[in-house]
Amino acid sequence: MPHRVDLNCDMGESYGAYKLGLDEEVIKHITSANIACGFHAGDPLVMRHTVNLAKQYGVEVGVHPGFPDLIGFGRRDLAATPEEARSYVIYQIGALQAFMGGKRLQHVKPHGALYNMAARDSGLAKAIAEAVLEVDKNLILVALSGSEWVRIAEKAGLRVASEVFADRAYNHDGTLASRRLPGAVIEDPAEVVSRGVRMATEGKVTTINGKDIEVRADTICLHGDNPEAVTLAETLKAKLQASGIEVTPMGKFL
Amino acid sequence: MPHRVDLNCDMGESYGAYKLGLDEEVIKHITSANIACGFHAGDPLVMRHTVNLAKQYGVEVGVHPGFPDLIGFGRRDLAATPEEARSYVIYQIGALQAFMGGKRLQHVKPHGALYNMAARDSGLAKAIAEAVLEVDKNLILVALSGSEWVRIAEKAGLRVASEVFADRAYNHDGTLASRRLPGAVIEDPAEVVSRGVRMATEGKVTTINGKDIEVRADTICLHGDNPEAVTLAETLKAKLQASGIEVTPMGKFL
Amino acid sequence: MPHRVDLNCDMGESYGAYKLGLDEEVIKHITSANIACGFHAGDPLVMRHTVNLAKQYGVEVGVHPGFPDLIGFGRRDLAATPEEARSYVIYQIGALQAFMGGKRLQHVKPHGALYNMAARDSGLAKAIAEAVLEVDKNLILVALSGSEWVRIAEKAGLRVASEVFADRAYNHDGTLASRRLPGAVIEDPAEVVSRGVRMATEGKVTTINGKDIEVRADTICLHGDNPEAVTLAETLKAKLQASGIEVTPMGKFL
Amino acid sequence: MPHRVDLNCDMGESYGAYKLGLDEEVIKHITSANIACGFHAGDPLVMRHTVNLAKQYGVEVGVHPGFPDLIGFGRRDLAATPEEARSYVIYQIGALQAFMGGKRLQHVKPHGALYNMAARDSGLAKAIAEAVLEVDKNLILVALSGSEWVRIAEKAGLRVASEVFADRAYNHDGTLASRRLPGAVIEDPAEVVSRGVRMATEGKVTTINGKDIEVRADTICLHGDNPEAVTLAETLKAKLQASGIEVTPMGKFL
Repeated sequence: MPHRVDLNCDMGESYGAYKLGLDEEVIKHITSANIACGFHAGDPLVMRHTVNLAKQYGVEVGVHPGFPDLIGFGRRDLAATPEEARSYVIYQIGALQAFMGGKRLQHVKPHGALYNMAARDSGLAKAIAEAVLEVDKNLILVALSGSEWVRIAEKAGLRVASEVFADRAYNHDGTLASRRLPGAVIEDPAEVVSRGVRMATEGKVTTINGKDIEVRADTICLHGDNPEAVTLAETLKAKLQASGIEVTPMGKFL
Repeated sequence: MPHRVDLNCDMGESYGAYKLGLDEEVIKHITSANIACGFHAGDPLVMRHTVNLAKQYGVEVGVHPGFPDLIGFGRRDLAATPEEARSYVIYQIGALQAFMGGKRLQHVKPHGALYNMAARDSGLAKAIAEAVLEVDKNLILVALSGSEWVRIAEKAGLRVASEVFADRAYNHDGTLASRRLPGAVIEDPAEVVSRGVRMATEGKVTTINGKDIEVRADTICLHGDNPEAVTLAETLKAKLQASGIEVTPMGKFL
Repeated sequence: MPHRVDLNCDMGESYGAYKLGLDEEVIKHITSANIACGFHAGDPLVMRHTVNLAKQYGVEVGVHPGFPDLIGFGRRDLAATPEEARSYVIYQIGALQAFMGGKRLQHVKPHGALYNMAARDSGLAKAIAEAVLEVDKNLILVALSGSEWVRIAEKAGLRVASEVFADRAYNHDGTLASRRLPGAVIEDPAEVVSRGVRMATEGKVTTINGKDIEVRADTICLHGDNPEAVTLAETLKAKLQASGIEVTPMGKFL
Repeated sequence: MPHRVDLNCDMGESYGAYKLGLDEEVIKHITSANIACGFHAGDPLVMRHTVNLAKQYGVEVGVHPGFPDLIGFGRRDLAATPEEARSYVIYQIGALQAFMGGKRLQHVKPHGALYNMAARDSGLAKAIAEAVLEVDKNLILVALSGSEWVRIAEKAGLRVASEVFADRAYNHDGTLASRRLPGAVIEDPAEVVSRGVRMATEGKVTTINGKDIEVRADTICLHGDNPEAVTLAETLKAKLQASGIEVTPMGKFL
């Protein structure tokens, strides 16, 4: 059972004139920022600004690569070949690294459809692992707790952070329940917090069918889309700390 | 008078299903490759392939950043702010660096409108110099011989390669004659070669008005668009060597 | 002196996951909507939604074509050739027309840099006029009051709506004062309203240098970016009507 | 058994500086041109040029809408919602219509992944049919012969052209054999021609497993990517005519 947990949040998803996310608020409550790199969201100016914001708050920086689908925000499955996906991830890691002023990136967390497809497609999972290894073998890959993807990435030689979602319902096999199902997204803040704390302290979560399964919570995914999400992040962090969990960047313990 | 000269060529300008340039041919006759990074041309798969092609032929690799204008191939002036341009260049340097497998990039040569605007706009010239310095102060910047841009970049602390064009007519002030003018592009291969050799050996070129001006030829820009261009590259390289000039990557002597 | 005036506002500038503008609010206070067409903003789903919103409120629909510069929101001068610009405008008119369900479009108002460049570049002004004529000669072109562009478009055979900006300072020659100058954007709502009413009733505006010039106010540009802008639109419309001006779509009187 | 057949070919797939296809050659041998609309290929200048080319040769014009995936040339399955796909098709029909100078479009043939997905996904098939109906109910939809898509579109009220591929192997159920299988693309020109003629005259084709199935050949898909393809188009047309088949635009007989 882990005594330390990381809190991660997607950031830098604004684009040109378009603003998205309360980055300046949620940054105060997390330990790792996943920064978009211009494929599904983000642009070079936003990336630069967001890296600096993370530095200012002592938050570790990770790459948040997505499919080249700005109009779909990278949320739509795309039948890219493993070779294409690998090159997309390499490209985006490099683009973000260039804004780091020589400091190292901590992790890579694929976005949206790229993340979801990797959790169920071993060819894609391998391609992403190869991409990370090719650029910097010290980078941590963030992948869905309990997924085959975690095993593939570890076998490839990567450090992996197993990720859990406090606000999402789980199936019995550890996959996330489809967003189309009722109850797939947990809306009650108190329940989200209690699930998050239990996953971090006990390593367990109750599935959509009412049974407990084991999860590994190296990092918990938070959101910063709206004021309620920011408050929830703040609350979860406080409860985790009150439960004796050290909330710290994943790079400190993986 | 220099005894060494570099030969550079734009490469990796294919995009998805679109093929452009005889990269596999012209690579044999150059010492430095400017690789497009996905803004005006190029895509992640093409970048990876082209970096590997350059390694195979022992050609040094440079970044060829452009404006985000794929439909215009980066050839159209765009009123980006210096801050925007700086972030575009940083992003593209990083993206290409990630495909280098740990090897260092040699240089940065802006593309098309970004190059031409930098040669006449000191704010943009400074922004590009800052971008290069921010990512890697050892990178060489390729800039138009005799331009204010060269001075700005050198003053900023960069190593600069002064570039000449053997197939373009020069104005008396050292700028390139507009492509819209008759005679702006020199089409006779023999004349292109003799101008290239003279620039490299004597540091002089005859302007569109018939007078000689001084140029500094650290690197000569070649093309690989068609079989004639490839033959021209081969011939120019041979003539330079026959004239006692060492044709070698700019990083060896700058 | 006109007794009728149109109120126009840019709409449909959201894109994918990105929301921009209070379209549902400002639509209540205008007579003509300029709908973005996917080049600088907008996407096909947003276009469809926005056309239907306009129909629901009885607001006339116009095309708001921009440069292909999503990352710059179409606000940056781009050195497109007249032929390129013409084809961009034709394309965007057609794309929006397809969502009209057989109903005709009322007008075309270029966006951002395309608008500003057309007001000072006769080649571009002609190209835009040709584009509109080529697709539908009954479309009204919205152009800056007093500009050479108005004369070029009228000479080409188009109906033209002269546009004024109640919240922008004017130079003595009728051009808009650069946004970089202090006072270029008028922030006091009462002043914006009084200037709008005076332009519509008297056809006059006081320039940044304190002198009166004549303007022709067929249509006044409003904004819907924030709640204050929406309130301002509502107030201006009420004051115009209280001053005996009929606020009605430009197509009714041009 | 039909006595008339249409020959269609994808055209206008160049983009900016990138040239693709021998449009000027293959146009001489076809009766219907499917013109790309800027999503997977094509740009506004290319569209305008290609429409004019088709007019010059008396070839009927159709829309060739694709997914917004330029980097993948629209060949990759994309999990767009039916509502998104519908709006993409509407948009692209309108964009091309605007270049027609008042002349009507003849047909709509989806491209690549959009075509292949529609042939097996009834929700997408319906969305495409709705899109065409919404813009112009007289447009003919080109769909895979024998597919459920044909039935869905006809039921929706559209005229449908059943399409066959002379150079592709068929499965027993009338679907095309996957390109990954050996023999999926038929390379022998004589065999391609004989299959094309047999499909047009007898309405039959031999599957990859050696059995005959029935097909309906309203239109045969040709290619113009290389000189051999152009020669093949010319030969097939001549053989069809020699076999007593009238080669004429689909709009003449559907």
